[in-house]
Amino acid sequence: MEREQQKGQLFGLGVGPGDPELITVKALRLLQAAPVVAYFVAKGKKSNAFGIIENYLKAEQITVPLVYPVTTEKLEPPLCYESIIADFYDTAAAQLSAYLNVGRDVAVICEGDPFFYGSYMYLHDRLGARYVTDVVPGVCSMLGGTAVLGAPLVYRNQSLSVLSGVLPHDELKRRLADADASVIMKLGRNFHKVKNVLDELNLSGRALYVERATMQNQRVVPINDVDPMASPYFSLIVIPGEKWQG
Amino acid sequence: MEREQQKGQLFGLGVGPGDPELITVKALRLLQAAPVVAYFVAKGKKSNAFGIIENYLKAEQITVPLVYPVTTEKLEPPLCYESIIADFYDTAAAQLSAYLNVGRDVAVICEGDPFFYGSYMYLHDRLGARYVTDVVPGVCSMLGGTAVLGAPLVYRNQSLSVLSGVLPHDELKRRLADADASVIMKLGRNFHKVKNVLDELNLSGRALYVERATMQNQRVVPINDVDPMASPYFSLIVIPGEKWQG
Repeated sequence: MEREQQKGQLFGLGVGPGDPELITVKALRLLQAAPVVAYFVAKGKKSNAFGIIENYLKAEQITVPLVYPVTTEKLEPPLCYESIIADFYDTAAAQLSAYLNVGRDVAVICEGDPFFYGSYMYLHDRLGARYVTDVVPGVCSMLGGTAVLGAPLVYRNQSLSVLSGVLPHDELKRRLADADASVIMKLGRNFHKVKNVLDELNLSGRALYVERATMQNQRVVPINDVDPMASPYFSLIVIPGEKWQG
Repeated sequence: MEREQQKGQLFGLGVGPGDPELITVKALRLLQAAPVVAYFVAKGKKSNAFGIIENYLKAEQITVPLVYPVTTEKLEPPLCYESIIADFYDTAAAQLSAYLNVGRDVAVICEGDPFFYGSYMYLHDRLGARYVTDVVPGVCSMLGGTAVLGAPLVYRNQSLSVLSGVLPHDELKRRLADADASVIMKLGRNFHKVKNVLDELNLSGRALYVERATMQNQRVVPINDVDPMASPYFSLIVIPGEKWQG
């Protein structure tokens, strides 16, 4: 009787918001020990996550790009964004299974934290039941942003709302109005709408804006000076909680 | 004319949620380079933050405990918690200024992230205008918790609410009912109230509970099995966002 092949282990490694030094000691150790390192990348683009850890890798490590399909063109039914992206994650999971099934550990690197809006979550949901997994939390982009802005985020018992700039105007407005402190992620083409909401709520005076926090090309811009057409996806707005007198 | 003494620099270093390996490479470098290392500690207790980094320190580094006053006894007016704690932070800031003014750098270590409910914020607010500061973000306890629980927290454009267990029943209920995903911090003696709210909203089935995530004495307990009288301050409840089919 053949001995069953011991399966490899799946690691989801948060590598932090951009500065390579903001990786944790644990993620760095596991990254360098992994025979296979996988990362997400948009077709034709450079991967941000890979750029963060590139210099930590050794020549003998296998790197596996998981290339997002381009989905900007108009889709003919029955194609839709959801089905295409689900197929993509199925394929990516199968790619990694091929290594895991022959006993090789695979580290998936994740910008920020793996479970905080990370693409790793879709692999975890597909593979977590079949393989031993270990998720190493990372410094999320939100906290990279507040550090760079020098902005204490939440005091004592304040409530924090983390919102996507993709939300419709009215929902964004309702949620922002009800929060003690907020962070709005995924700005990009949503900046104009978000800025209007902040103006309507008289929150622009408290709002801080940063692009690509802790990355080499980081930019802090007064919120009224941001060009709405040029705000990148990796920008965020922070509305810190009111300072507590304590 | 005497040359003005060059002032020291103030560092707020996030040291992560508990596991000493979850400190970032940057925070570790700056920690070990700091001649003076300060940390908050409750009177008569061991400091969690100090425990995390103790083994990284070198013999020649000066350690400065900033000891919280005990405030559980009944206070006679005009004394109140707010004024006592404000005095305490004033004193702590003065203690650190003594080092900064003679040109010594001071690192204040912070469990989790410095700007995410961290006591460092009160020093930053007092000293940030007078000294050069550098805040190094850390892995916050919330993401330490989700990693340990194996629970992807927020998908795509879901909204996340971070709430304190101290909030009154009705506010907690309103905010939880409106969130796609939530994390409730500062449980401790508030567990019973929080659990009631979750039951009223039929959320207990989705809620996950962990004590002291990533610390050596970490415990994951099914939420219905938690002893409400024994939940420690460093416990949290995570209600992950609904899995996205993608």
